[in-house]
Amino acid sequence: MDFDIINHKMELENIQTLLFLKNENIAYLSGFSPSSFSMVLFTEEPILFASKMDLEEANIISKIPVEEFKSFKEIKTLLKKDGIKTVGLESSVSLGTCKNLRGDWKIVISDTVNQLRMIKTPQEVKYIEKAISIAEISIKSLKLQGKEWEVANQINHHMKSNGSQKEAFDTIVASGTRSSLPHAEPSENKVEDNVLIDWGAKWNGYCSDCTRTSVSTEKQEEIREIVLESQKAGINAIAPGVLASEVDKIVRDVIFDYGYGKNFIHSTGHGVGLEVHEEPSLSLKSDSKLEKNMVVTVEPGIYFEGEFGVRIEDMVLVKKNPKILTKLPSKFNFEC
Amino acid sequence: MDFDIINHKMELENIQTLLFLKNENIAYLSGFSPSSFSMVLFTEEPILFASKMDLEEANIISKIPVEEFKSFKEIKTLLKKDGIKTVGLESSVSLGTCKNLRGDWKIVISDTVNQLRMIKTPQEVKYIEKAISIAEISIKSLKLQGKEWEVANQINHHMKSNGSQKEAFDTIVASGTRSSLPHAEPSENKVEDNVLIDWGAKWNGYCSDCTRTSVSTEKQEEIREIVLESQKAGINAIAPGVLASEVDKIVRDVIFDYGYGKNFIHSTGHGVGLEVHEEPSLSLKSDSKLEKNMVVTVEPGIYFEGEFGVRIEDMVLVKKNPKILTKLPSKFNFEC
Repeated sequence: MDFDIINHKMELENIQTLLFLKNENIAYLSGFSPSSFSMVLFTEEPILFASKMDLEEANIISKIPVEEFKSFKEIKTLLKKDGIKTVGLESSVSLGTCKNLRGDWKIVISDTVNQLRMIKTPQEVKYIEKAISIAEISIKSLKLQGKEWEVANQINHHMKSNGSQKEAFDTIVASGTRSSLPHAEPSENKVEDNVLIDWGAKWNGYCSDCTRTSVSTEKQEEIREIVLESQKAGINAIAPGVLASEVDKIVRDVIFDYGYGKNFIHSTGHGVGLEVHEEPSLSLKSDSKLEKNMVVTVEPGIYFEGEFGVRIEDMVLVKKNPKILTKLPSKFNFEC
Repeated sequence: MDFDIINHKMELENIQTLLFLKNENIAYLSGFSPSSFSMVLFTEEPILFASKMDLEEANIISKIPVEEFKSFKEIKTLLKKDGIKTVGLESSVSLGTCKNLRGDWKIVISDTVNQLRMIKTPQEVKYIEKAISIAEISIKSLKLQGKEWEVANQINHHMKSNGSQKEAFDTIVASGTRSSLPHAEPSENKVEDNVLIDWGAKWNGYCSDCTRTSVSTEKQEEIREIVLESQKAGINAIAPGVLASEVDKIVRDVIFDYGYGKNFIHSTGHGVGLEVHEEPSLSLKSDSKLEKNMVVTVEPGIYFEGEFGVRIEDMVLVKKNPKILTKLPSKFNFEC
């Protein structure tokens, strides 16, 4: 990757050193995904400080120089020696860690790499598409039987068999009345009609994220049509320069017009990449503007407490003519 | 739980309001484990602010009053109305969230609940013991065949079948030369001799954490004996009032005396409870003192880069006569 962009941003923000502690940012910069506490120290050029435990693998995989992370004290000595005046930390850094890094410098929040990560390179899009294709093949061979968690395990097993590193997130299998809980954990219940499955694979670090809901009654079918109409409106609104909040509003308005505004209890979508949830957020509160080559989900849902819920989620590459990356039919039915 | 202890601590630290954002702390206080952004606001009495998405379940499960979390602005309005001067945040809170909570008050780090959580009640110990027993039954029925990840999946499936909510952490199955990587992800390699398995179940929110290594050569057997000797020395040193760093040192010294000091590349152990890694840390840098009814791991390991590694991990309840909670024989052998 081209580190000049980061240097340029640092100059603009008047920051001499950036410290990256988030695993996905370290992976983005170095190609190495640490298993324990690590950081990238970036002053003109990046250095990966990896724990003793990770050194063996880091030395093989990292594209940037590797040193052993010994202590915060040592890092601070380095900063002091270089006469650093301003240190940038990611907004995800904890107060505890920030305290450990205090010194004769100003600490400011800088999410430079998170921002860069929003725009995907063609190669990153390919990795995401590969993760999607693994997830989709895996769902097609699903036998919908047993307990909800057994179905979830089956999906996870298929994804691994098909080359996924691991699940991109905890697979959701929520059936019957449990489908009204958007983030339900798969239960001991035998899977029953009206099944909502939200699942994703991970390939070379990159995630997929997709939801399908199979329906069994006329009412459920009607609700799914509304969800799909709202999703279509949202996807059609996607273009470089459009506010993320505007896409959320367009989706929400369709659902609201059908009288189900209060049943759409989450935001419309989020970016996907090395993290399954990353910037930009497609929500009313977001101040992000969509840009070319972002990858986002559009996932409206309508939920009736104690009855049932429907959510359909697809992944979209932002372009003038947005490209839907997920290929599985919207009305894909899981049959019990 | 008795909220007076928290009130008393707040008085001592001169904090009028504590905000808890960490999932496990919210679960500890309310009994409800949120699936999306939530917080407990604690001013004399606690209130759980749950997202719209979690409201249905939170209202059923939470032992403390539930309100809907709408925005940071609303929380800040509440703090302002109450004339709060000092707000305590957990050290795990991110800089970004902290920024969202800035107002006419001083923000200080307070890990009151993390500290309380270190000391387990008899009921919590029972939950941990249940998680351990699930993990141990599950490993006994393991058939060691196929790829490393298939073995890991098999363990996870057994744990779920035996009543685990989910894995306490990503199961490690590292065999052959890969056993020299303490945090290896299970690979596509067919599992081979010298297998290190690190696995844990979760029951009612509480975790177990155990490692066994089966050996096949004389050299490996010899190393396992040294690891066991160091572990035994560590466990024998455990008692209320002993420094956590002292236990680490005792374990490390045994391994050092055999000439393998540089091959023990991580710390000796950590607390286990609602989180699989929690306070206290049993490491040289720790300033914690062991107290009665803490639950900690003791997990020395010796690793030879590119050759093999051995780690044995057990869970111990701190008492005058420490109680080893894990029951599986130390030399339990996984056979290929």
